Amino acid sequence: MDKLLFGVAYYDEYMPYERLDKDIAMMKDAGINVVRIAESTWSTVEPQEGTFDFTHIDRVLNAMHKAGIQVIVGTPTYAVPTWLVHKYPDVLAITPQGQNQYGPRQNMDISNSHFRTHAEQVIRAIMKHVKDHPAIIGYQVDNETKAYNTTGPSVQKIFVAYMKDKYKSLDVINEIYGLDYWSNRINTWEDFPSTVGTINASLAAEFATFQRKLVTDYLAWQTAMVNEYKKPGQFVTQNFDLEWRGYSYGIQPDVDHFAAAKALDIAGIDIYHPTQDQLTGTEISFGGDVTRSMKTNASNYGKNYLVLETEAQGFPQWVPYPGQLRLQAFSHLASGAVMLEYWHWHSIHNSAETYWKGLLSHDFEPNPTYNEAKTIGKDFARLSSQLVNIKKTNSAAILFSNVALTGFNAFSFGWGAREKYNDVLRPMYDALYKMNIGVDFVDPSSTNLDQYKLIVVPALYAASDALLERLNLFVKNGGHIVYTFKSGFSDENVKVRTTRQPGIISEACGISYSQFTIPRQVSLKNDPFQVGKDNNSVKTWMELITPTTAKVLASYEHPVWGQYAAITQNSYGKGIATYIGCMTSDAVLQKVLETAAKKANVWGLDQQLTFPLITKSGVNQQGKAVHYYFNYSSVPASVTYPYANGKELISSKPALKNAALKLGAWDVKVVEEN
Amino acid sequence: MDKLLFGVAYYDEYMPYERLDKDIAMMKDAGINVVRIAESTWSTVEPQEGTFDFTHIDRVLNAMHKAGIQVIVGTPTYAVPTWLVHKYPDVLAITPQGQNQYGPRQNMDISNSHFRTHAEQVIRAIMKHVKDHPAIIGYQVDNETKAYNTTGPSVQKIFVAYMKDKYKSLDVINEIYGLDYWSNRINTWEDFPSTVGTINASLAAEFATFQRKLVTDYLAWQTAMVNEYKKPGQFVTQNFDLEWRGYSYGIQPDVDHFAAAKALDIAGIDIYHPTQDQLTGTEISFGGDVTRSMKTNASNYGKNYLVLETEAQGFPQWVPYPGQLRLQAFSHLASGAVMLEYWHWHSIHNSAETYWKGLLSHDFEPNPTYNEAKTIGKDFARLSSQLVNIKKTNSAAILFSNVALTGFNAFSFGWGAREKYNDVLRPMYDALYKMNIGVDFVDPSSTNLDQYKLIVVPALYAASDALLERLNLFVKNGGHIVYTFKSGFSDENVKVRTTRQPGIISEACGISYSQFTIPRQVSLKNDPFQVGKDNNSVKTWMELITPTTAKVLASYEHPVWGQYAAITQNSYGKGIATYIGCMTSDAVLQKVLETAAKKANVWGLDQQLTFPLITKSGVNQQGKAVHYYFNYSSVPASVTYPYANGKELISSKPALKNAALKLGAWDVKVVEEN
Amino acid sequence: MDKLLFGVAYYDEYMPYERLDKDIAMMKDAGINVVRIAESTWSTVEPQEGTFDFTHIDRVLNAMHKAGIQVIVGTPTYAVPTWLVHKYPDVLAITPQGQNQYGPRQNMDISNSHFRTHAEQVIRAIMKHVKDHPAIIGYQVDNETKAYNTTGPSVQKIFVAYMKDKYKSLDVINEIYGLDYWSNRINTWEDFPSTVGTINASLAAEFATFQRKLVTDYLAWQTAMVNEYKKPGQFVTQNFDLEWRGYSYGIQPDVDHFAAAKALDIAGIDIYHPTQDQLTGTEISFGGDVTRSMKTNASNYGKNYLVLETEAQGFPQWVPYPGQLRLQAFSHLASGAVMLEYWHWHSIHNSAETYWKGLLSHDFEPNPTYNEAKTIGKDFARLSSQLVNIKKTNSAAILFSNVALTGFNAFSFGWGAREKYNDVLRPMYDALYKMNIGVDFVDPSSTNLDQYKLIVVPALYAASDALLERLNLFVKNGGHIVYTFKSGFSDENVKVRTTRQPGIISEACGISYSQFTIPRQVSLKNDPFQVGKDNNSVKTWMELITPTTAKVLASYEHPVWGQYAAITQNSYGKGIATYIGCMTSDAVLQKVLETAAKKANVWGLDQQLTFPLITKSGVNQQGKAVHYYFNYSSVPASVTYPYANGKELISSKPALKNAALKLGAWDVKVVEEN
Repeated sequence: MDKLLFGVAYYDEYMPYERLDKDIAMMKDAGINVVRIAESTWSTVEPQEGTFDFTHIDRVLNAMHKAGIQVIVGTPTYAVPTWLVHKYPDVLAITPQGQNQYGPRQNMDISNSHFRTHAEQVIRAIMKHVKDHPAIIGYQVDNETKAYNTTGPSVQKIFVAYMKDKYKSLDVINEIYGLDYWSNRINTWEDFPSTVGTINASLAAEFATFQRKLVTDYLAWQTAMVNEYKKPGQFVTQNFDLEWRGYSYGIQPDVDHFAAAKALDIAGIDIYHPTQDQLTGTEISFGGDVTRSMKTNASNYGKNYLVLETEAQGFPQWVPYPGQLRLQAFSHLASGAVMLEYWHWHSIHNSAETYWKGLLSHDFEPNPTYNEAKTIGKDFARLSSQLVNIKKTNSAAILFSNVALTGFNAFSFGWGAREKYNDVLRPMYDALYKMNIGVDFVDPSSTNLDQYKLIVVPALYAASDALLERLNLFVKNGGHIVYTFKSGFSDENVKVRTTRQPGIISEACGISYSQFTIPRQVSLKNDPFQVGKDNNSVKTWMELITPTTAKVLASYEHPVWGQYAAITQNSYGKGIATYIGCMTSDAVLQKVLETAAKKANVWGLDQQLTFPLITKSGVNQQGKAVHYYFNYSSVPASVTYPYANGKELISSKPALKNAALKLGAWDVKVVEEN
Repeated sequence: MDKLLFGVAYYDEYMPYERLDKDIAMMKDAGINVVRIAESTWSTVEPQEGTFDFTHIDRVLNAMHKAGIQVIVGTPTYAVPTWLVHKYPDVLAITPQGQNQYGPRQNMDISNSHFRTHAEQVIRAIMKHVKDHPAIIGYQVDNETKAYNTTGPSVQKIFVAYMKDKYKSLDVINEIYGLDYWSNRINTWEDFPSTVGTINASLAAEFATFQRKLVTDYLAWQTAMVNEYKKPGQFVTQNFDLEWRGYSYGIQPDVDHFAAAKALDIAGIDIYHPTQDQLTGTEISFGGDVTRSMKTNASNYGKNYLVLETEAQGFPQWVPYPGQLRLQAFSHLASGAVMLEYWHWHSIHNSAETYWKGLLSHDFEPNPTYNEAKTIGKDFARLSSQLVNIKKTNSAAILFSNVALTGFNAFSFGWGAREKYNDVLRPMYDALYKMNIGVDFVDPSSTNLDQYKLIVVPALYAASDALLERLNLFVKNGGHIVYTFKSGFSDENVKVRTTRQPGIISEACGISYSQFTIPRQVSLKNDPFQVGKDNNSVKTWMELITPTTAKVLASYEHPVWGQYAAITQNSYGKGIATYIGCMTSDAVLQKVLETAAKKANVWGLDQQLTFPLITKSGVNQQGKAVHYYFNYSSVPASVTYPYANGKELISSKPALKNAALKLGAWDVKVVEEN
Repeated sequence: MDKLLFGVAYYDEYMPYERLDKDIAMMKDAGINVVRIAESTWSTVEPQEGTFDFTHIDRVLNAMHKAGIQVIVGTPTYAVPTWLVHKYPDVLAITPQGQNQYGPRQNMDISNSHFRTHAEQVIRAIMKHVKDHPAIIGYQVDNETKAYNTTGPSVQKIFVAYMKDKYKSLDVINEIYGLDYWSNRINTWEDFPSTVGTINASLAAEFATFQRKLVTDYLAWQTAMVNEYKKPGQFVTQNFDLEWRGYSYGIQPDVDHFAAAKALDIAGIDIYHPTQDQLTGTEISFGGDVTRSMKTNASNYGKNYLVLETEAQGFPQWVPYPGQLRLQAFSHLASGAVMLEYWHWHSIHNSAETYWKGLLSHDFEPNPTYNEAKTIGKDFARLSSQLVNIKKTNSAAILFSNVALTGFNAFSFGWGAREKYNDVLRPMYDALYKMNIGVDFVDPSSTNLDQYKLIVVPALYAASDALLERLNLFVKNGGHIVYTFKSGFSDENVKVRTTRQPGIISEACGISYSQFTIPRQVSLKNDPFQVGKDNNSVKTWMELITPTTAKVLASYEHPVWGQYAAITQNSYGKGIATYIGCMTSDAVLQKVLETAAKKANVWGLDQQLTFPLITKSGVNQQGKAVHYYFNYSSVPASVTYPYANGKELISSKPALKNAALKLGAWDVKVVEEN
């Protein structure tokens, strides 16, 4: 990117009265240099089939251009117009709950031919119309795309064709999915039942993979179309999102992010998170690390990413405290973002997101949040060349897997258990975040494992032999891995391995087990990590581990299970594999990861700080190291700046090695080494 | 009414064996002088299409008449017979959950033409048959009527026609409802989608208004039909009910009570409430005040109302303690009821309401509840001329609004919040009740605001400019208003106002705000109402208010929000507007209302008592003031009677000004001034 | 049975690789002498309509026979193959939630003609094929059969025909079900609505009876078919199950066990229960007592029963502590089981029951659970002739009723109450179990009431006059009955009795009541059973009882209800009837039952022990008394053996009268009297 982008989503269509000039004036005042428009506005662009009206797009493009504000144009396809549903009711997806109804966005079947035909028409019409406009910096295809659980008869046909193509033979499918169980065997392709009612987790997981492929294919299809029109220098992106738990929480189950991002020029994300006393920066860092990792092999700006949406005021409970909006903004940059865009400019006066407030309230007047954004815009402009396109290099990575996620979630910790894959992954991420250990994300398709010293592997429940053997080899060659429970348990088809557990990785881990149970009043014997009684208990899951060659880091305190190991560490070849066989407290988890990080030599100057003092770094376009320091707390703090002399960019004052940097409540400092 | 009516619902059809003579003897013994019959008995009156059987009605009318018991005949339409559903399955409403099934009452589409045709046939057949019977005092049309969320295709057609008629142009609708959002724009009438799936609260609120209009129209239609047959002196009523939370709780969302009551001669209500240690009288008072207010402009007995149903034994947990049935009975009278009817005479031996017990248990024998009813019947008869048709005049009113209710409930306090409009309204009502401040209810259609000194306005979330300007004018002219948070926020179409909040009422309130949040560990600074720590906290919602001309009654105690006002008071013209910007404890609410009541001069002798000692008064037919004193407690109490000398009617003893009136557990005393 | 059977369910079809010889070797090693096969494998036996493949069955039968392991062959009908659903979609049951989907077992309409035709074809094909195989000891028809709430139009036709046949006249139905209520009256058979939406508990209960009859008829139909082929000495059984609450909890609502078992040669059951610190043996004892009672009048091995399924490792939280698997195994025998079969041999690698682990884990290797099973197999073989076919004689019985259960559950303790019939029955069973009072189960069809001294009658909510009169007579003749609240309340059609409650049994109980309520802060006056404050409170339900001739055992402590009796005892003829009018603590219940048992002379040497020390006894084939002693605790204990000198069979050491028997943690001892 040629500069830091600071922007908002802007909907001229939604304005209750003529606002364009006033809005642009206020934007300029706030340093906003980019807006995203047009996604979700199909019904205004194409009010009736084949009738197009580009008024809103045109006037915004022209006005923005005149004001020097760049524009990202979104294809409008993620919300279908009334006429389309009226004429072609089958565009509404049939899900396990029945056919969707008109009203919400994202209710369509993205594989439906009527939908595709009309989506293509509107996209091409827009592209033809706008392609030469100088305001446009790039395009966004669709928005937060998923397959929305589309499972109707026409999707079933595509799925069966996909299965035929992938496996050729039903015998293979029956075998690897164990379909003889409960008479689920399929003996002719015609008999292939809908997966909606299936009790076979292998088949269900394959259908989930298929659904993720629908997303990948659909985004590639839109991207290819847009590519036909886009000009050199313009990018195509998509606004990905994360597993949602009232805010952006974890790995997205419904999209294969690494695969889907391939077609794009640069990855985009939306990140929403709690604020006020709940603001920790974790989701900003997590979402950033995931998105930055999507296009690791990209040569261009792919190594950075766009924050296409994040909150300004957001939900009522998210109205930021003074300083938080700035803290958040610089936190995004510190993770590698080159654009920060608020959703949205103005709060919406009607409909579902009335209480998801933008930079402006419904009254369009300056307010404390907008006023703070003005300071951000000013700093972004001033520091753009030093902070844009920062390159980050991490020695640690987290290995996630959509297939493992689906398989794990199918069973969790037994019937009735509510924990999901991300409940295992996030505590590991959070522990690393709190220790200021920067991480990338890798997935089973990643070919760059060797660049890391430490790989953290949460709940790799379903994995191919090849992947597990690669991981063994990684350790053998000197790498460090920290596994949790349930890793290696089943193959890539969610068939439980028929060997002793944890299957293939037993070799690197030096352990085995064949039984597991739910802990009740179980703790770790003798508090091995010195975390105190409350933090020493074991919860939710415990494997009854017998070490073969591993050293026992912790065993269970329990009248019956005391003989078994809970956490082990094993030297294998030149490396070390740590295995965490039970759900522990965050405190224990952090200690185990600290131990592993130290052994892996992923422990340095940044580890002198811990949350709420967060530090991130990278190398800027000038080849200089940039160090961010954040205080995620209302209590002022002082940190010792440990690197080479440089300049604190916000204050423009010198920052000397080993001198104190003062951080106010929710404050940020940025040091560029000389 | 020419006398106090004391009665029961009576179903000869449900009797397990021949009971009529025995029942009437027991009724006479209990002073029962009216029964309600025939509602819900369509299948016995018309066992097959066009075949009528009036046996049950005739024998009950004749026997009651002979015994001097008057009869209210209900149209039987709220429960459809099996043959109707078998022949015309489309009478069962299609709701968002699918088509209703046969079995329950109130499962029909009241707009369905087959239903209407057959409802008309059965109503006319009954009316023709009974119209000359001398036992009949009046008629009830249908029962607890709603539109039951009917949303099928035929209803959709009616709704679109209603929209065309109301707005003429889709452009207007798109504009005022903001339908461009998420591509919801409707460009031709043919495209108009069902509102079932809508995410547009404005459209959903309009559909709710439309559904309430279906009820109003349907009741007017039935009433017009009955009016063709009824004799002079007979009334037509309907049994309205309240929002149900296991008991009668608040404003009914699904009926526009003021509009629907217009067609009727007198308003009726059912009121169910907890008893035993949970008996407070609040629901009796609330339901009475709402119902008495329905026909404020009626010249006739419309100023009083009928309690068409209330519990005798009721649910198992409601079996009354000794004294409670009497306390309840006189409480109804004190609010202006002229009839008290138990639902029902006998407990039902089969089906859904077996454990909703009547005055008699399933054994038809006298029991403690029935025996206490006998004392009520005796007193009612003896005191009828003094206690019937009491006229009540209040200086305070609560302004409620179905439109505000719908709009508020669409958003509540943000995604996931469970609070409803009535959770704001009821605490205000309850505080006034506990302070013995009598209130009427007014709604946006009321033209009599000027008769009040104090108007309390909970959560007037959606309101027209005209209404808000009327309220400003009310203050300007010397009135007092107490508003809560969220009032004035959106217009009558649930479009959020584009001005600073609270919009038009800012002028009278002397405040503005553009941000709000959810309080966490927030209280009122310096405990301004001296309610103690537990009662001083702020919950659920807080607006970040800046006073312009208002005086701050309370501001927030919080590290960040401390600069903002929480509760304000503003002199405007000759009056005062109080604004409560956050959800407070009941204790704070009571203090704020006390302050306002005192300033509004709505504070007098009755305010020397507080709950559990409740007093109500009115003027009887003889023009004498009548004062009720209730002890809603098991602890005996003594109150000082502060009015002119009179007679305590129950004991027939003199009651002297400033003398003590003793009240036993759950006791009542009634003084008529000389 | 000619020996104790110790076995597993075995599914050659589900094996991930060739295992048969290895599995059989491990089985032999564990003393396994029986396997159950083929149920749920329709899709492998009949991969396409009319094409049969007996490979799996044949190879297992042959290999087992060769190894001397006997086989139970199950009909495969409880899980339908894909082709059947593809060709005849109507085999999937339509339930109130819509039509079932393919995937799970037990999704079919067992009354569907396509299903029946094809079920017959596959059963006959299997039977013809296997009938001469010498390995087969017996057959299981279907599995855990229910009607699965099948309610579609074709079932409705059968139901209406059933109603016509049973009642002849709609007038009768309208009368006894009280269908005039809410216009539910049915005036022609054509109008008969689906019961899916009914609010009439009488009609709903009849439909539940009808559904249970579908099960009885279906099992009789399968059994008759199998009987055509089976050889002398082979048995037919069914795997019944209990109400499921995450484990086997109570009386099965959906099957009339006594009726359904009539067609069978021997009753079978599956019993699953918590283990580890939650292991109490209660469900083993309960399930055993129920199943043993199913065929009381059978002359043959019908007096014992088969445990067709129970857990080995089971759910993760059920992995047994050392000793528990043995304790469980002998507990089954002590209740009269002649077979103990684990579900299942190996843990399944795909699909829904992956985490319902078998004797082997997924790795097929020996594990602690399997190793403990080996000791059981050895002991079973050694002690077979002494422990098989034990005959049990009890002086106490519990009267349960499917009709009462359905009626009770329709209302529970009022709207919103969650308690079910089994919440009343189980505490009574549990109290008897803890006091080591052995019980049988009887139901309204039982003709052997006179053999008992004490009958415990929980919540006999719906019962015919005849049954209640029989119970009165039982008391009159010297029997003892302990009733709970709600007994006798309604007739067999769930019509509440029109007499004073508790209706007909008032005579024997010497009490009456007409009101009841929900206790709040109510206890028993003066702690009459000396159980201490915490155990003395009354919960959930209380009847306001007035004794006529009864002695009051406990009355209520409450300001208002203090005048009423809570628990009474009445001498009637030569016997005594105790009535418990409220829900008490388990401690009070145990005291009341202890008192009753002592009066009934059901109190002996076994009552010197209480839980966790459990004793059971019976008479073996040699006519010798056998006494089991169980320690359901991790704390070792010593019990005094009070019977005649004998031999402790597990240790083969003498057991002398009044000598101490030592029991380790979770230990068992078995004494055979000399």
